Amino acid sequence: MTKLDETIAELKYDEAGLIPAIVVDADGGGVLMMAWMNAEAIRRTVETGKAHFWSRSRQKLWMKGESSGHTQDVRAITIDCDADTLMIEAVQHGAACHKGYRSCFYRRLGEDGAWEVIAEKVFDPDQVYKKPE
Amino acid sequence: MTKLDETIAELKYDEAGLIPAIVVDADGGGVLMMAWMNAEAIRRTVETGKAHFWSRSRQKLWMKGESSGHTQDVRAITIDCDADTLMIEAVQHGAACHKGYRSCFYRRLGEDGAWEVIAEKVFDPDQVYKKPE
Repeated sequence: MTKLDETIAELKYDEAGLIPAIVVDADGGGVLMMAWMNAEAIRRTVETGKAHFWSRSRQKLWMKGESSGHTQDVRAITIDCDADTLMIEAVQHGAACHKGYRSCFYRRLGEDGAWEVIAEKVFDPDQVYKKPE
Repeated sequence: MTKLDETIAELKYDEAGLIPAIVVDADGGGVLMMAWMNAEAIRRTVETGKAHFWSRSRQKLWMKGESSGHTQDVRAITIDCDADTLMIEAVQHGAACHKGYRSCFYRRLGEDGAWEVIAEKVFDPDQVYKKPE
C-alpha cells in the first residue's frame, strides 16, 4: 500500500462512499462547480492530472470534459480540517457548467427572494453536447 | 407563501434535508469552508445576514461564530445549475477554521501522497474556544 493509497483510504466518505469536491479556477476565477468523488475518482485524478468524478445520477465514473472537451487540469488538491471535503484547483478548458456558463454558480438570490442570473453564457450547450448530459 | 419560501422549498436537498454550502471570502480570499444547511438555516441566514448551518454531528442549527465570535456577514447567496449546492459569499470575521486557520483548506496533497500544511494559524484554538467545537 502506497502513501497515496493510505491518504485516499483515510478520507471521510459518506455512506455511499463519496466525498464532495469543490473545483476552483486555478487562475483566480473563483468556484467553478461542486461534484462528488469516490476513492477511484480521486486516484484517477491524481494519476492523470485531469479531474474525474462519480456521477450520482448515472452511477458511473466520469472525466470532466469527456463529452464537451471542457477538461480540468488539476494544479492542487486540498482537504479541509474534517477530511470530509476536497477542494481541487484546476485550469478550466472551455467552461465548467453544462448549461453554458463559465461557473455553475451563475444565479444569485435577489432582494425579491428569486434567483437572478448574474453571468453570461460562454458557449451554446446545443452546439457542444450532442445530447444533454 | 412568500417568493423566498418558494425558492427555499424548491432547492434539491439530500435525504436528510440538507444542502452543501460552500463559503467563499467576499474579499477575494478564496474558499473558507464547506458546511451544510437545511431550509431553516437558509432562512435564518437570509433574515439575519449571518451564516447559519446545520451541524450533522450535533444535530442542531448553529450560527457560524456563536462560540468563537468568528461570524460571517453574508454578501451574496448563489446556487449552482442543479440547484443542489449553495455558495455563500461572506465577510469573515476572525477565521473560518476551528483549528485556527483562516480557511479550513490548509492542507495540500504533496508529491509523496501525504497532506502538507500550506497555511499558518491565525489564532490559537485553545484561547478562543473554552471547549473544542
